[in-house]
Amino acid sequence: MPQIDPNAIRQGDRLALSRALTAAENGTPASRDIQAALFPHTGKAHLIGITGAPGTGKSTLVNQLVKSFRKAENLPAPKVAVIAVDPTSPFTGGALLGDRIRMHDLAGDKDVFIRSMASRGALGGLAHSTAAFATILDGAGFDLVLIETVGAGQAEVDIARLAHTVIVVEAPGLGDDIQAIKAGILEIADILVVNKSDQPGAENTARALQAMLELSGSNTGSLFTAGKHRMQAQAPASLSPVNDEPAWKVPVLQVTATDGKGVLELREQIETHRKYLLESGMWQVKENQRLKQDLDSLISDLLVERWRQRQDKVAYHDALKNVIERKWTPYEAAESLLKKSSIHSGIIVR
Amino acid sequence: MPQIDPNAIRQGDRLALSRALTAAENGTPASRDIQAALFPHTGKAHLIGITGAPGTGKSTLVNQLVKSFRKAENLPAPKVAVIAVDPTSPFTGGALLGDRIRMHDLAGDKDVFIRSMASRGALGGLAHSTAAFATILDGAGFDLVLIETVGAGQAEVDIARLAHTVIVVEAPGLGDDIQAIKAGILEIADILVVNKSDQPGAENTARALQAMLELSGSNTGSLFTAGKHRMQAQAPASLSPVNDEPAWKVPVLQVTATDGKGVLELREQIETHRKYLLESGMWQVKENQRLKQDLDSLISDLLVERWRQRQDKVAYHDALKNVIERKWTPYEAAESLLKKSSIHSGIIVR
Repeated sequence: MPQIDPNAIRQGDRLALSRALTAAENGTPASRDIQAALFPHTGKAHLIGITGAPGTGKSTLVNQLVKSFRKAENLPAPKVAVIAVDPTSPFTGGALLGDRIRMHDLAGDKDVFIRSMASRGALGGLAHSTAAFATILDGAGFDLVLIETVGAGQAEVDIARLAHTVIVVEAPGLGDDIQAIKAGILEIADILVVNKSDQPGAENTARALQAMLELSGSNTGSLFTAGKHRMQAQAPASLSPVNDEPAWKVPVLQVTATDGKGVLELREQIETHRKYLLESGMWQVKENQRLKQDLDSLISDLLVERWRQRQDKVAYHDALKNVIERKWTPYEAAESLLKKSSIHSGIIVR
Repeated sequence: MPQIDPNAIRQGDRLALSRALTAAENGTPASRDIQAALFPHTGKAHLIGITGAPGTGKSTLVNQLVKSFRKAENLPAPKVAVIAVDPTSPFTGGALLGDRIRMHDLAGDKDVFIRSMASRGALGGLAHSTAAFATILDGAGFDLVLIETVGAGQAEVDIARLAHTVIVVEAPGLGDDIQAIKAGILEIADILVVNKSDQPGAENTARALQAMLELSGSNTGSLFTAGKHRMQAQAPASLSPVNDEPAWKVPVLQVTATDGKGVLELREQIETHRKYLLESGMWQVKENQRLKQDLDSLISDLLVERWRQRQDKVAYHDALKNVIERKWTPYEAAESLLKKSSIHSGIIVR
């Protein structure tokens, strides 16, 4: 594979950028060097997570939003990157079709870059690959990085909440499962969007969301704060929210992505949220939480990788055999293997 | 907490069973003892995964299916347990409402047990908690364990595919995101259900699924085999599929769960798939793959837990500070911390 030059990426070389992302997806050592070279230049991009159940029209909305940002009149148009995380295909990687459709629409605009996450890298899961993508795109000079996930699973929610601004997309009348999802997903939303608002029931959905927000206390900040504290076990002081933080009131917007209605208002709310984050000090808090989460997931990946390299293949085979024959529980087998490898390496584990 | 008696669980004590599941969810040491006591009695239950996007009516379908199994005329009615995995709420745990609704409907039948997975345990993620639940319910003597997940995320797909029989539920016209999901999720399906088949477009959805199955080659076994092989790196011979395995032809069924149309046929297909698994030897292959996956996830959880216990808090704090100040990448910080803890413990890591 040819060398990838981080300076070329910084200067807008698309081929170098694509190669760097592929390397990150595969977790190659070269990718680590590129990320290390770009890392000092990061921390500038606004990371925007967009999540919602299938069928809510997220992709169309993202497309419209990108166009709206690129046409902003009174500010210099930002450079926009989109990461489409579609982990629904365990084998082939999804979303490639969606990519091509959108590429067609935004093709020719050299300050827009769209990429789907086609697979999970060898080292690290989906969350880590997304973090690596964000680092590279941030370092490449994109002002906005939109991270689109299918928000019906834990992994996808975890990814979305790492963004500075989290947009949760709903649509009218998607069935009774939705109720349960809303309850959980509301708590990570900075902006709620009811898409397809030209369809019957949109008004009701918006009202129901507003009522749930008020019930859950999200808009007084109490629930949000509870969530943040949970993430802060062992965190240094710089991860704590600023005192007397002004509460962010989650807006509920009605949008029709297909004809662009409400998209401008959404863009303005994103910009308002960005100002709120910067002025309240929450920008830095979120940034630090994201970096801590990335560090923790890398530690866990490296521990497993190193253990596998040292592992005694015969002992592993025997342990699995004992489990299959129901002599040991999987837990007993795991404990036995870890004890063996520790003694082998010279540590005594209690 | 009072002691939980594994014998009481085996004899049908519901309170003991509920307590054991709660202990498993919390990953307590007591739970490990209970699982160890029940483990030799496991391996009998038929694990059935049911997955699909929100809005496909999975819960209603599961409800009808349980009723159908309980009313089976020409066989002794099986004892049925349902695990509702709803990981969409990162904070509060979802699906509790759904539980109560279904409980009401099936209340009074002492051979039906329904439980939602309300949270992720301290040790181990969602997949591990589900495995623990399956072990306990299998050991408690349930003949069928239905595992219902919201199938739009990687974690949920991973859980569903661990079952002996995987049912993927679709519904007519849920929007364009669905196409991408189908492509991935088709490959894990043993039975495809188009629910809400009284709605317009059901026939088209069924035809499209059938066409996709034929295109992907799932029904000739080639794709399915490729998937299985990927899981078998380092696996002992007993994890390999049996040679000359007769191919399973994935049926596409049209069902209307609300009025019960097609539910009997679905039940019969589940029973046919069970016979196929047993006769082809695939039952044991799937069983072994599931146990291996559970072992691997426990090893990874234990490695991280033990590292955290030994970790130098000051070194961790300093490393994170260097990342936040963009002096080190998260990867460099993780490497540095792992090197320190290894030297500290007496191992030299390359």
